[in-house]
Amino acid sequence: MHHHPARLIAKKRDGGELARDEVVDLVSGVVDGSLGDAQLGAFLMAVCCNGMTREETAALTLAMRDSGRVLAHPHVSRPKIDKHSTGGVGDKVSLLLAPLVAAAGVAVPMLSGRGLGHTGGTIDKLAAIPGYRTDLSIARFQEVLAQCGYAMLAPSGDVAPADKRMYATRDISGTVESIPLITSSILAKKLAEGIDGLVMDVKCGRAAFMGHEHDALELMENLVAVGRAAGIKMAALLTDMDHPLGLALGNALEVAEVIAALDGDCPADLREVTLALGVEMLLLGGVAPDAATARATLERVWQDGLVRQVFVHNLELQGGDPGVVDKPERLGRAPFVVPVECARPGYVGDVDPLALGQVVVDLGGGRRQPADGIDPHVGIVLVHSLGDAVHVGDALAFVHARTAAAAAAASERVRSAMPIGDERRRRGMLVKKRLA
Amino acid sequence: MHHHPARLIAKKRDGGELARDEVVDLVSGVVDGSLGDAQLGAFLMAVCCNGMTREETAALTLAMRDSGRVLAHPHVSRPKIDKHSTGGVGDKVSLLLAPLVAAAGVAVPMLSGRGLGHTGGTIDKLAAIPGYRTDLSIARFQEVLAQCGYAMLAPSGDVAPADKRMYATRDISGTVESIPLITSSILAKKLAEGIDGLVMDVKCGRAAFMGHEHDALELMENLVAVGRAAGIKMAALLTDMDHPLGLALGNALEVAEVIAALDGDCPADLREVTLALGVEMLLLGGVAPDAATARATLERVWQDGLVRQVFVHNLELQGGDPGVVDKPERLGRAPFVVPVECARPGYVGDVDPLALGQVVVDLGGGRRQPADGIDPHVGIVLVHSLGDAVHVGDALAFVHARTAAAAAAASERVRSAMPIGDERRRRGMLVKKRLA
Repeated sequence: MHHHPARLIAKKRDGGELARDEVVDLVSGVVDGSLGDAQLGAFLMAVCCNGMTREETAALTLAMRDSGRVLAHPHVSRPKIDKHSTGGVGDKVSLLLAPLVAAAGVAVPMLSGRGLGHTGGTIDKLAAIPGYRTDLSIARFQEVLAQCGYAMLAPSGDVAPADKRMYATRDISGTVESIPLITSSILAKKLAEGIDGLVMDVKCGRAAFMGHEHDALELMENLVAVGRAAGIKMAALLTDMDHPLGLALGNALEVAEVIAALDGDCPADLREVTLALGVEMLLLGGVAPDAATARATLERVWQDGLVRQVFVHNLELQGGDPGVVDKPERLGRAPFVVPVECARPGYVGDVDPLALGQVVVDLGGGRRQPADGIDPHVGIVLVHSLGDAVHVGDALAFVHARTAAAAAAASERVRSAMPIGDERRRRGMLVKKRLA
Repeated sequence: MHHHPARLIAKKRDGGELARDEVVDLVSGVVDGSLGDAQLGAFLMAVCCNGMTREETAALTLAMRDSGRVLAHPHVSRPKIDKHSTGGVGDKVSLLLAPLVAAAGVAVPMLSGRGLGHTGGTIDKLAAIPGYRTDLSIARFQEVLAQCGYAMLAPSGDVAPADKRMYATRDISGTVESIPLITSSILAKKLAEGIDGLVMDVKCGRAAFMGHEHDALELMENLVAVGRAAGIKMAALLTDMDHPLGLALGNALEVAEVIAALDGDCPADLREVTLALGVEMLLLGGVAPDAATARATLERVWQDGLVRQVFVHNLELQGGDPGVVDKPERLGRAPFVVPVECARPGYVGDVDPLALGQVVVDLGGGRRQPADGIDPHVGIVLVHSLGDAVHVGDALAFVHARTAAAAAAASERVRSAMPIGDERRRRGMLVKKRLA
């Protein structure tokens, strides 16, 4: 570092605005270790307490991006647009959205993370497909992208290594909850993909990172402004995460739901959110003149089988068994599949995503710690959604479990997470806000 | 730690007030290492940004005190009162004040630090007395205290070890400037002395830790309130550090100034500050009914030779050569002593304490780094003070140096630090505020 670390930290402590070269210097200290743990912890807390301007956050984002490998795709002439979600329960949108917009003319070079806690990760879901590889070389990743319009990669340590250390430090030091730190952490990795534009799906609700709409809106606005300041096109939707998205929760079960959706059998909420995000991607990529045309294009390629074809092509290119599309049973199945029976007549009064997400983790389908293994086959398939009329003995859901005991325990918890009432509640708006 | 560290840190981040058991838990994590560097840095920054209530600061102070050895002096029946200064240039008050108040009936169990940068340390000054030992065992320290009324000890690592780690962390992480952290760091070590009361000398001015009176006042009020909340009697004076205290700067030179003062040859400013602090100590100790009586007592024991006698007794008990009192030349002398000559007639327009303190450090009389050695004999003896009328060729000061080159370089800098003007400036109030 060229600057004295304590001086830069004190500047942020006193509410000052760091210059670009000062931010670059701090991030170089994060990567080469010349900024010690105590200094990093103090700096992150100073940002938590005093914030950062958008210019500072953009400088931080770019410095974090440039701390590692940054991809470029000169041989891909299509507009390169990605989508990123802040994470939710049942959020398998990426699996469906990537082939959807690829079929409509956009290239999607997607680096995705693994899941942690109740929010799943796209890489974990893809791993449920026999043979599917996300550990491609960069050269192969670019070939796949050029050939089928999208490619999926689990990032190795050389993408935004500054974020890796900063995130690990935030996690233990009470400095996770900071809009500029969240923004830069998300965007640094996405900017390393070599994209022209990014659509953010900022989840809001009980199972979202941002529970309150006020906070989610602030994050959304910051992401859009900082992404633009960092040089890419941005759009964002604020979407509901007060209830799970779709009906399947658990890795292989969610892949099966996506495969069914390719053939048109798609839960309305999953369809709506996927199309809404796809419209934004097409508009950002400039491949549709307006939202109505974009939506019509997406519905056409979905309906005429092109999306299914792109999905199969990607499976072939990334080593996945393309046979799962015709025979989803090849994804495998947990040994115990038991119904959660309804105990009283009425309406489904809630579908608590946080409780259900935690059941999936406890069944073995998610991670408590980053190093945990995952059972791809366990999970929950909802039969009914919020507001459905149900009768005694109806199956509210099916639990897929490794053991009978786990199934029984999960079943009880799913029943509690789906209380039956006398009043018919309706789900609120799926897409709450749009910023583009 | 019983609590989750990140949760406690986040509580302070969000402006919450930590309960006593939460503070105790954090400090235990500081000492046993279960609170990592990043967590400690983040916690300290959260305190910098959001402050601490007096109750929290008192809890922190007591937990830091209790992280190590806490002395008690059951065999000393006198009231045990100490004085602590926030540090200044030429501040040799402790050396004179301890025998002064001991002669008046107070016991002073003084643990002092070493100097760093432009502020000297009492332990360094005492080390300039041939044979004087400050590395006493606790038992011997208590014997000396009982026998002559004061004892001087350089604290070993077992006094407030939490402070040691916290201070080192603050120093590198931009978290030094925090009233509650400064307060707890000072008081934790002083409370470990086993004292009934403490008089704080909060320095204010260019060469003080607190340059602005507003900040110094806030620190003073906090120290007094937190010390009382932690269970001891407190008084405090805000004193001037816009100019050096006394005329001698440098360890042996300051001891010589103190020895001369024992016989009544004492610069007015040193005398005034010493007496003012002594009055507070006598009042806190309950050995004088009011300030006027306290002052009269101190002046009497000073004048009648009792203070000198107590000083000699302490030298004998702590291994120092008592002969230095009659023959100060036994303290030794730097090989080069050169006058700083006045270049134009007029009045001494400034005596810049920061510049002079830095000259002493550069002569080898102070530390740049904590591990640096010290040359006891080098330094500066001022001949003239602010506002004195001077003529061309007058000696403004004498530089005591190890080499002729060092003397010449220092001489130039001392001349710059004592500019001569046409207007007669007068020094402001020495004791600016009193809180008792």
